[in-house]
Amino acid sequence: MSIRSLALAASLFASVAGAALAQPAPMLGFTPEGAATERTLEHRLDAMISPPELDGWLLRMSSQPNQVGSPHDRDNAEWQLAQFRSWGWDAHIEQFDILYGVPLAESLDLLGPRPFHALLHEPAIPGDQTSADMPGVLPPYLGYQGDGDVTAPLVYVNYGMPDDYRTLARAGVDVRGKIVIARYGGGWRGLKPKLAQEHGAIGCIIYSDPKDDGYYTDDPYPKGAQRPADGVQRGSVNDITLFSGDPLTPGVGATPGAQRRYTRETAPTLMKIPALPISYADALPLLSALGGPVAEPDFRGALPLTYHLGPSPVMVHLVVKSDWRLRPIYDVIATMKGAEFPDQWIVRGNHHDGWVFGAEDPLSGQVAMMAEAKAMGELAKSGWRPKRTLIYASWDAEEPGLVGSTEWAESHAADLQAKAVMYLNSDNIDRGYLNLEGSHELQTLANGAAAEVTDPETGGDVLARRRAYLQVKAEAPGAGPEAKALAKAAGTGGPLPIQALGSGSDYTPFLQHLGVPSLDVGYGGEGESGGVYHSAYDTHDHYVRFGDPGMRYSATLAKTAGRIVLRYADADLPPVDFTAFAATVAQYVDEVHKLADREREETAARDRLIDAGGYKLATDPDKVELPPERQAEVPAMAFAPLDLASARLTASAERFGRLYASASLSAAQKAALGRAVQGVDQALMSPQGLPGRPWYRNMIYAPGTETGYGVKTLPAVREAIEQRRFAEVDGAVQATAAVLNAYADRLDRASATAGG
Amino acid sequence: MSIRSLALAASLFASVAGAALAQPAPMLGFTPEGAATERTLEHRLDAMISPPELDGWLLRMSSQPNQVGSPHDRDNAEWQLAQFRSWGWDAHIEQFDILYGVPLAESLDLLGPRPFHALLHEPAIPGDQTSADMPGVLPPYLGYQGDGDVTAPLVYVNYGMPDDYRTLARAGVDVRGKIVIARYGGGWRGLKPKLAQEHGAIGCIIYSDPKDDGYYTDDPYPKGAQRPADGVQRGSVNDITLFSGDPLTPGVGATPGAQRRYTRETAPTLMKIPALPISYADALPLLSALGGPVAEPDFRGALPLTYHLGPSPVMVHLVVKSDWRLRPIYDVIATMKGAEFPDQWIVRGNHHDGWVFGAEDPLSGQVAMMAEAKAMGELAKSGWRPKRTLIYASWDAEEPGLVGSTEWAESHAADLQAKAVMYLNSDNIDRGYLNLEGSHELQTLANGAAAEVTDPETGGDVLARRRAYLQVKAEAPGAGPEAKALAKAAGTGGPLPIQALGSGSDYTPFLQHLGVPSLDVGYGGEGESGGVYHSAYDTHDHYVRFGDPGMRYSATLAKTAGRIVLRYADADLPPVDFTAFAATVAQYVDEVHKLADREREETAARDRLIDAGGYKLATDPDKVELPPERQAEVPAMAFAPLDLASARLTASAERFGRLYASASLSAAQKAALGRAVQGVDQALMSPQGLPGRPWYRNMIYAPGTETGYGVKTLPAVREAIEQRRFAEVDGAVQATAAVLNAYADRLDRASATAGG
Repeated sequence: MSIRSLALAASLFASVAGAALAQPAPMLGFTPEGAATERTLEHRLDAMISPPELDGWLLRMSSQPNQVGSPHDRDNAEWQLAQFRSWGWDAHIEQFDILYGVPLAESLDLLGPRPFHALLHEPAIPGDQTSADMPGVLPPYLGYQGDGDVTAPLVYVNYGMPDDYRTLARAGVDVRGKIVIARYGGGWRGLKPKLAQEHGAIGCIIYSDPKDDGYYTDDPYPKGAQRPADGVQRGSVNDITLFSGDPLTPGVGATPGAQRRYTRETAPTLMKIPALPISYADALPLLSALGGPVAEPDFRGALPLTYHLGPSPVMVHLVVKSDWRLRPIYDVIATMKGAEFPDQWIVRGNHHDGWVFGAEDPLSGQVAMMAEAKAMGELAKSGWRPKRTLIYASWDAEEPGLVGSTEWAESHAADLQAKAVMYLNSDNIDRGYLNLEGSHELQTLANGAAAEVTDPETGGDVLARRRAYLQVKAEAPGAGPEAKALAKAAGTGGPLPIQALGSGSDYTPFLQHLGVPSLDVGYGGEGESGGVYHSAYDTHDHYVRFGDPGMRYSATLAKTAGRIVLRYADADLPPVDFTAFAATVAQYVDEVHKLADREREETAARDRLIDAGGYKLATDPDKVELPPERQAEVPAMAFAPLDLASARLTASAERFGRLYASASLSAAQKAALGRAVQGVDQALMSPQGLPGRPWYRNMIYAPGTETGYGVKTLPAVREAIEQRRFAEVDGAVQATAAVLNAYADRLDRASATAGG
Repeated sequence: MSIRSLALAASLFASVAGAALAQPAPMLGFTPEGAATERTLEHRLDAMISPPELDGWLLRMSSQPNQVGSPHDRDNAEWQLAQFRSWGWDAHIEQFDILYGVPLAESLDLLGPRPFHALLHEPAIPGDQTSADMPGVLPPYLGYQGDGDVTAPLVYVNYGMPDDYRTLARAGVDVRGKIVIARYGGGWRGLKPKLAQEHGAIGCIIYSDPKDDGYYTDDPYPKGAQRPADGVQRGSVNDITLFSGDPLTPGVGATPGAQRRYTRETAPTLMKIPALPISYADALPLLSALGGPVAEPDFRGALPLTYHLGPSPVMVHLVVKSDWRLRPIYDVIATMKGAEFPDQWIVRGNHHDGWVFGAEDPLSGQVAMMAEAKAMGELAKSGWRPKRTLIYASWDAEEPGLVGSTEWAESHAADLQAKAVMYLNSDNIDRGYLNLEGSHELQTLANGAAAEVTDPETGGDVLARRRAYLQVKAEAPGAGPEAKALAKAAGTGGPLPIQALGSGSDYTPFLQHLGVPSLDVGYGGEGESGGVYHSAYDTHDHYVRFGDPGMRYSATLAKTAGRIVLRYADADLPPVDFTAFAATVAQYVDEVHKLADREREETAARDRLIDAGGYKLATDPDKVELPPERQAEVPAMAFAPLDLASARLTASAERFGRLYASASLSAAQKAALGRAVQGVDQALMSPQGLPGRPWYRNMIYAPGTETGYGVKTLPAVREAIEQRRFAEVDGAVQATAAVLNAYADRLDRASATAGG
């Protein structure tokens, strides 16, 4: 490529000029000289990341079942402890004792004239060295389901999400006293039994439809990567929309001997009905037995049958019995003390427990984190010291409900609230495109680091590749307005917007319970590990064939996360950008305005149509198609406090930003400024927490109560509107405005302190 | 219902006050007194429509295979002739001799290590009296395919539409020298072999995927209505985008002994490669044998396999041989002469030939038309005479390519151009919602008639039900902008917009070749005959169980079409509304502006992304994903002549409309005004016809060259833009503006003649 065309491509896609061009990009929090030194360090980090070494660790850690309570889970923790120590880290294991059930008995039968007994077993795959039937493999199971022995007709509830129950109601199908069968997808797994029991069902089956990750999507394993007929997705159904972690000890660490607030019977996050995950081979006879109305198109999967809603004319018999007791879990915690700001902590985590072998989930991310730790250990041995303290954490028991991270975060809450300046998470990854999510004050830091990481497939940088990906995706036929907006943002020269964090991995206790600014970084979109997610086929052999051949993206993750850690660790000023946060909040405020307007218009239009008898007139009288329920008019809402707070936040962030950027700050002033904004995110936390779930205190970012993993930003306001609790909106607006004002106060005080 | 709530519902949904309320709606072309008399006549018509009689006719006509050339096809024609005569009509049969192939031999084999021999047969369905294996059933066959004996690898081309070939090219899959397999749907069947041969394929298989009309959509026959595993959709693949009718005689009637312009070898509408329709039972082994890339989501159907694009590593052997000769077809033509304006003809048609038994297609519409004719015969016997001449036509050979109607229209072209004031078509129907399509000067007439037809399921009127249906449909999640726009139009008090006509039934020669204003009226959306469309399972038993139990909608069709005929027949002034036409044209003009702007923006954005290397950067290097071809910049286009012509048309139509509505016109003035606008649609015809297809002369309405049945309005302009023949746009704009100006001239002259 000529210099001229390189320059053209650089101007269009390459994120920064980098070392190859004359003018390196500014590095947030560093002087130009400091940035040059830092880049040298980063290149040394890159050189120390060895894909074959990652592969060896992956093979070792995924060689035996490593779910919570398994011998290999503990063994992996102890082995990691030794590794961290050998790399020069101050490491230890923290043990917690958590309530955790493991299956004693489970069965599923279709009764009646054509009986069927479900297999509930994943046979070994010929040619896969690590998927063999092996003692200690956890059978198909849903963590924290409710146990029971129930017999009832079956009803198909699609994804089992709130809209699905509305559709069922309009079709006249009632799940009370029934066992429901839901397919995976459409929302977080744990909402499926929760909503089922709320609607009166007495049992819940969840199956993997081939439409979602089976033969419909690509060839099944072992020919291709996708879920084979007997493959089952395990998972937890603990209600993390209330709180994550041990069901018995919300808010405090489940240390051995600690007081338990709840028992299994009283714990609100535990399901009350039995639930079981099954394969599509097991689902086929069940779904074929359903009567009742034909399911609407959105409900249909890829099995060769006509999907009916049910109920089934015959009974289904479901049994799940578990051995419930307290079980130990093992977090590995490794620390490297900061030389200048030892009380500014950077916490970097990934979990080490899987559901079976866990090669992709979680070990593909875990080995990247280990590679960072090893490289930083080497750097430290050669004389480098981080300015800030690094804590590398290998969590246990993420799978049951972010338990290892939550218990540790709760145990060290006061220290973390005072000292932790960033939590950086990763989890399972595949080859493909960079994914960045997190707190928007870290958006500029994350962008800057990613812009200097080389994509192993294209040789471009990973941020530029992500931009190109978003733009190309938006060119596809049928791309929606959201994809087009993302592509537009990606196509500008400005920073690539990062997405907000909901839940589903270990950042939740840090970000949403403790108010520690967080990032989650990953790769994916080309590898195909999703088809064996949480099954016994998520193996080393599968991963290196389909997930990330050559471990090149695990290595790239290590370079990306390692850069983010190093930059925060070494920066003179904390590499935070409050203007990015303020701009994002302004966008969220705009969204809730539009949400309310849209709800108001749509409600009015629908009500008019109901009142005019339009639904009755349009309905096929041969079918049950009830009109939607008439809804109350959407009232006016007083958004002004939020508008004002957002405007003020913007002004405060800009004032702080000007001060931050001034070239004349002394080292002492920088240190003071850093200390002045340390813990600013604590201002976003409400002491009362979110409505109905006081454990969640972050007023900007939360997992949705009706999405589970999916984020709701400005959650108190947004969910009050979405869930039509209109009387609560004004209060939620005021509470949210209050935290934004408090945040702006903190920024203003910091600016004043430093003379801005 | 109280008077108050009735009035409320009436104001919101009921289309007119009707006889029940004080103020009957105005009736276009009638005085208030004339309208009252007309309504009395219409109620007499309603009373004479007998569903059991329709059912008897349906059973009789569908009792044997009735495709072109079959004994029962001729027998049905002769029986209908006798019926028309017995009802007092002046009736005769017109015979044409058309080129038509019938299968002599056909076979389909998958070769290689796991050979498969396709069944190509539809077994009888237990319990269906009329689907039994019976001599004379046409085997699965595509009319006017190309014959051949070919062996080649197989490639899957999805729907086989232009965009599908673009997708294949980007995936590096070439169909040259291959046999393609396409699924039904996505566009007109005949485009599939046509595009296949244009892309170099040597054979074409078309199958019915269960996603589109099989078990995916509802239970298959006989449990439900949908296509069973062995069901096959027959059909014609004659290229009607060039011209409809006999392939040898475009533009002239294929009367016995007439000169033939083409031979089978030279006829441009005949396919050159063999093509065969198959069932999904036969398709399953073929699709399972494909190699190559996994098909993208839009390409995937509902068979239990991973859809690959191909090619297949093994060969497929396809043989189709036909007996090609001239064969007679039989149109039944029945005339009732007009008392006042005998040279103003209203032509009403439906076809009588099917592919096998043809219960739904075409006989469900055919028996409605017969019921109208019988009732009008009775009315005539009791003293009524239409002011204008009625011609009821039962077409033969619609299925092979609108042949009976086209040959008749071409044979009587001069008379029709001079005298025909409306062609009113129907075809297969099911129970459900009113469908109105046609020339927009007839929109007000069609609305007015439909507003007074009672829906048999709800007791509302059929137009109000259609409005409610459109509004409710737009409330469904995922409803697109088009559905929302339709719902908005349906929700106003104004007329319900009718859709423009493309092709697919017998209106094409009248509307698009001869310039006769046309309407097509039907019902559907609740019945489920589509699942046996063009198969041996489209039987009487199926239809009365699933299509229209009790024949209530065939009866409703007779009342709807009968009203439209009667109103046109009896009106003092022709019931035309040129303002509706002008408003619709203005909307089309706006659409082509937006189309050009969108093409320009999208091309520029895509080209920028290509130039910047975005596609290369975003592409998975493990897959073949070529960037789209770089396209030339979309130039500026001179739409001004069209804008001006549209504005002028609006002014002329409004001027004429004011005159038309004036209360002071004498009977003689009305007659003069009617004569003055007779044949005004001839102005819309271009002597040169559309680019590349001179037989199509209507510059406003045409079937799309790349959609087949789907309409393209302002076709010369719209297709030049869509197909990127930008150099032709200015000429097309001028030609289209010219016909609109000529039309406005005609209206202005008519206004001047009548003193307006």
